[in-house]
Order: sequence, then structure tokens, then C-alpha cells
Amino acid sequence: MQNFDFYNPTHIIFGKDRLASINENIPVNATVLITYGGGSAKRSGLIDKIKMALGNRKIYEFGGIEPNPKYETIVKAVEVVKNEQVDFLLAVGGGSVIDGTKFIAAASKFDGDSREILKGGYTPLPVEEVVPFGTVLTLPATGSEMNPTAVISYEHAKYFFSSPLLFPKFSVVDPTITFTLPQKQVANGVIDAFIHVTEQYLTFPVDGRVQDRMAEGILQTLIEIGGTSVSEPENYDARANHVWSATMALNGLIGCGVPQDWSTHFIGHELTAMFGIDHGQTLAIILPSLLVVRREQKRAKLLQYAERVWHIDTGSEEEKIDQAIQKTRGFFESLGVKTHLSEYGIGADKIPAIVEQLKAHGMTAISETGDLTLEISQKILESSM
Amino acid sequence: MQNFDFYNPTHIIFGKDRLASINENIPVNATVLITYGGGSAKRSGLIDKIKMALGNRKIYEFGGIEPNPKYETIVKAVEVVKNEQVDFLLAVGGGSVIDGTKFIAAASKFDGDSREILKGGYTPLPVEEVVPFGTVLTLPATGSEMNPTAVISYEHAKYFFSSPLLFPKFSVVDPTITFTLPQKQVANGVIDAFIHVTEQYLTFPVDGRVQDRMAEGILQTLIEIGGTSVSEPENYDARANHVWSATMALNGLIGCGVPQDWSTHFIGHELTAMFGIDHGQTLAIILPSLLVVRREQKRAKLLQYAERVWHIDTGSEEEKIDQAIQKTRGFFESLGVKTHLSEYGIGADKIPAIVEQLKAHGMTAISETGDLTLEISQKILESSM
Repeated sequence: MQNFDFYNPTHIIFGKDRLASINENIPVNATVLITYGGGSAKRSGLIDKIKMALGNRKIYEFGGIEPNPKYETIVKAVEVVKNEQVDFLLAVGGGSVIDGTKFIAAASKFDGDSREILKGGYTPLPVEEVVPFGTVLTLPATGSEMNPTAVISYEHAKYFFSSPLLFPKFSVVDPTITFTLPQKQVANGVIDAFIHVTEQYLTFPVDGRVQDRMAEGILQTLIEIGGTSVSEPENYDARANHVWSATMALNGLIGCGVPQDWSTHFIGHELTAMFGIDHGQTLAIILPSLLVVRREQKRAKLLQYAERVWHIDTGSEEEKIDQAIQKTRGFFESLGVKTHLSEYGIGADKIPAIVEQLKAHGMTAISETGDLTLEISQKILESSM
Repeated sequence: MQNFDFYNPTHIIFGKDRLASINENIPVNATVLITYGGGSAKRSGLIDKIKMALGNRKIYEFGGIEPNPKYETIVKAVEVVKNEQVDFLLAVGGGSVIDGTKFIAAASKFDGDSREILKGGYTPLPVEEVVPFGTVLTLPATGSEMNPTAVISYEHAKYFFSSPLLFPKFSVVDPTITFTLPQKQVANGVIDAFIHVTEQYLTFPVDGRVQDRMAEGILQTLIEIGGTSVSEPENYDARANHVWSATMALNGLIGCGVPQDWSTHFIGHELTAMFGIDHGQTLAIILPSLLVVRREQKRAKLLQYAERVWHIDTGSEEEKIDQAIQKTRGFFESLGVKTHLSEYGIGADKIPAIVEQLKAHGMTAISETGDLTLEISQKILESSM
């Protein structure tokens, strides 16, 4: 097991009818800015219920944060925070709204060019404090409700930043709030959570046994309930397990002391930025072909994955790995998500431009060991046609 | 899945050679009281290394906190904190030292009779703040390094209290620090962690799938590496997995949204209080016989336990459950821990007095459904002879 630090102070408020607890978790005299997305939270009456829970606090609203939130959009909320002396942010949405709110929280305390925050990666934020914020989760997928990380789009690229200052103070995670989501978003959410786990699990063994078992437990749960969560939106048990799997997939725990490989995300980000393919879809396209191309580097963990997650216990090593990859692809397709680039109308002729973008963004030596070159990314893309 | 809250802000600093990080995690001008136990931390040179890491801070020491720490002992440290204006506590030890330090942290900010804290259970502490504290873990067992709970002995009984104020600020969890532990303590530690998991897992199903898989993952890990952790004290991988299993067993996560049954602990506590049997040993005595007596109430989870943890896939339901209980007992015995009360020199004639103590401490309706009466406790004790 590798050395690690683990720190995660977000208070999770999980279950049915938990909105009232917002009141206890925001300072009584706070001026609150509610941030949200395209308007479904407004139309469904959720925003009104949240305002009721906030009681007499002064409230502002900032809607219109889009999927793959854009710097140009969210930077406008910073003005509201500064002008109206907002002292608490409440993100009502999925990963895009929460990620956007993390940017707003940091940028509102920063006097320089806020693109500096955007492009920060793991470097310390250029601020000592941020505006505190909570979340009401509406879409189980990214885990942003319990981590200090955000991905923001700017000029056709995705930028990532992370800081211990950016943990939500609390997150209300009520599975019933997600019942009205479109099927496609639920399916994408299952895949996003699934691949958050594989990025921290399908690498090489370091004898991190509890971490491996936890990762396998989340993967098995998603396989068991993913289809039901998509097809029976009001099945509480299935959705609750989906939601908690997604939160646990990316709150830092399963990544403790083990190698990580975010290559599927890095390659997938380019597909979203260039062609607007949904984040979850890009992962479903890339992961199966990445596993085919990287089977030697990932052999030991792929065998463990085949045996423990898919319960494949017959056949040669090669057959077990083949079956595991096929079953992975089959699982994504069973959720209604296509797994070939060509099925999204992208031809092989576009691959050189995608590789060019990876190069432009410095993705020339990715993977758990830094050995995944642009040439290998190209092979993965070719294999995903 | 049941509704739940999860909050755990302890910063875990895990791995080899992590003592230097103490310096970054305690305020520079703090006056520090180091608390420790019987003296092995002193003799091994660990306390000296910690003092080095603390640099020029003013340091006091309070040693002699015994296993099953006594109120009468730890209350003396409160005077040191108050008289010397100590503003940070650093617990160097296992669960007993850390639990004792939690009491010191709260009692030092309290002006009334500090036995009020001791007997508080889950009621809010009678203080608004506590003296902040960190820990350097020397014994993997109780999970106290990452939870806000303590058990303190007073007048031949054990008292429990818990408060969100009592999370350690940080815990240095370095498996190599535990290499010099006596085998018996390592074995007890494996059993303590194992039974922290079963208390949150062997109840009744509520479709908490990730929680179940995590619990099963910790149990399987302890079964896989427990023997090696005892017999090969300097096997880093085995010990690291043991240590992380023990921390994860009782940091609140596997208990999220599932029923809990602390009956084995409650009955075991009386055996420690009356006869001085080690905490881990009392659990090894009680759990197997409790499972025999409670097989109907726990049937569904016992079958799941048999299949997923012990991989028993043949035989009738009764045979599977029998085998799982036998294997559990066999595992404890394989670590060198006896599982029958008579093997500790306690005869059946003592059972009425034990039951009397359970009655005196209000343990008349325990278990996950509150249906475990004194009569059933008596049966469990008889079955454990």
C-alpha cells in the first residue's frame, strides 16, 4: 500500500425529506446565493421548497449554469456575490452546477484574473479562504457533492482544479429529488460513477485490499442496480444505491494508497470539448477500447476484476480478460449508451485532430505510470470506432 | 436504505515515516500535552521522536493511561491542561489513550463535575468547544483515531460518550510504529476490528449494498491478513492492511443507513469490568454464541455472511450458517484467542452476577431491534461456557 493522506469534512445528509436540514446548516443571518442549471430545478418546484427551508434569509438566484459549465457563464455570478455581499452559496444541481459553484466560491475571494483559479490543477488556490457553500444534489454521477474538485470549460478545453478549501460544507443527497431526471442522464450517471471507480482500480496491484474490495463493491452495486435505476426512476432502493455509489466513487476513499489512471477521462474530455458528446458517453466510448489496448499493463487487475466483479471463473487468462471487457461494454450498452465513436457520427478522419488536442493540452504521458503516449491514445481512439 | 448523516473531518496521515507531518498540523505556538500509556511509547523512543517533530513548542507529558482507561486516572490530566494553559493534546497510543484524551479534551473546557461528560452517551457535550487534539496511533484495533467516541471505566462500569466535537484533528497512522506490539495485542486488535464490522453488518437487510460490500471487504481482508499480522509483526503489507481495516471498521462509513447491534460489546464490557478480560477477548467469547442464539433474527444476513465472506456455497441454509459461525470461532482461535468463558477461568456460577450487572447498567433491551432481553443475554453467556 502506498502512503496517503485522507481528509474529507463534507457533512452528508442522506435520504428522504431532508431539505429542512438546510436551515440548521447555514448561518442564520447569511445572505444566500442559490445557483442552478437549465431551469428544471425551478420548474419542478425544488427551488421554491429550498427557499421555504431558508426562511427569512436574504436570497439571490443565479440560474443557467450549463452542462460542462463555461467560465464565461459562471464568472458572472462572481459579480453578484461581490455586489450583494453574499456569504453562503447553495448549489442546486448535479456536477456541473456544483463544479461551477466551487469556482464561484474561490473567485469571489480573489482580486486577480480568475482564470488563474481555473487552470490551477492541484496547485494551492491563490486565496486564503472561499465563500462557504452547500449543495442539494439533483443528479447522481460526478461525486462533486463530496469532493473538493471541479472541471470547468473555457475556450474548447476542460480545466481542472482542486483544493481542500473547496469541500462543500454539507450536501443534501435525497434520492427522491432525482426521480424526475431524464433516463439518459441517469444512464450517463451510472457510467460516470462506474468509471470513476475503474480509474482508481484498474491499474496495478499494491496490496490495498480494503480499497480494492470497496471499489469492487461499488462496481458490483452499479451493475446490480444500474439498469433498474434507469428503467424504474421511482424505485427508491435502486436509486438510493445508485446515488450512494456515485458519492462513494469519488470522495477520495477508494483512491487512498493506490495508483490512479485518469486516462479515460482525459481522452473523453476532448470528445466533449470538440463534439459536445455527453461526459458519461465519452467514458463509455473510451474505457472498453482503452482496456483492450492496455491489457498488458493492467493484466493483474483485469484478472481480479474479471473474477471478483464479473464472477468469471472459467477459461484462460486471456479469455477471462476478454469476457470482462465484453461484459463491461455490454453493461454500458444495456443502459442505452452507445460505446463506439462512429455511433455518435464521428469518423476515423477526426482522430488526428483529437490527438492534436490531447497534445495541445499536455496529455502526452498519461496513465498510472505516465507511459500512455499520444501514439497509444491514437490506438485507443482507433479501437473505439 | 435508512436515512443517515455522515460527517468525519479527521485528517488521516497514513504510511511510513509520517511523524514529521505532526509539525504542519499543530499550531506553531501551541503548548502541547502528550498523553500516553504504560510507558512502551517512552521506552521505544517514539515519544522522543515526536518531541523532535514538535520542535520548539512547549511540551508537557502525561503518561500512565491504562487499558480500559479509568476516570480517576485521566481526570488528573485535566488539571495539567488547565494549570499550564495547554492548547493542543497529542495522544500517543491505542484506543485507551485516545479515548482518555477525548475525555481530557472535553473536561478541560468544563467547569462542572466532569463525570457528567463521562455518562453523556450521545447527548450533546456540556461544553461549546474542546481542546483540539491529534493522535499518533500505536495499536490498530478500536478505530478511535478516526471517530468521535470514547469508552471510559468508572467504578467497575464502562461509560460511553460521543460528540462531533471529539473528532481528532489528525491521526498519524504509521503501520511500522505498531511493529513492536506484543502478539496478544495484535490478535486482540484483529478481533476488535472484525467485531466492529459485524456489529454493523450482522443485523437485518435494508438493501444498503455498498455498505454491505464494504463491510464484507473489511472482514475478508482481516481473515486474509490477520494471521500474518500476528505471526509476522514486521510484514508491512499485512500490518498496513490490518491497520487500515481497523480504522475503516469504525469511522462511521459502514454504519451509514444500516441497522446496528452493539450487543456483543455491551455484554463483553461487563466481562472486562468484572474479571479484567481483555476487550478483544470478551468479543471473541460472546460473538460466536450470540450468533448461535440469535440465528433466527439474523438469518438473512448470516446467510449472506456465509456466502460472501466465507465463500460457503454448498449445504442447506442451516449448514451454511453453522459453518459460518464455526469458521468465525475458528478464525479467532487461529489467532491464539480463546473463545470460551471457561477457558478464562470463569465458571457458569458467575453468570447470574454478570446478568445482574447488565441489568444495573440498563442493558435490558439491546440489539438492532431492542428485543435482546436479560434472559437472552443469559442464554448467550451459558452458550459461551
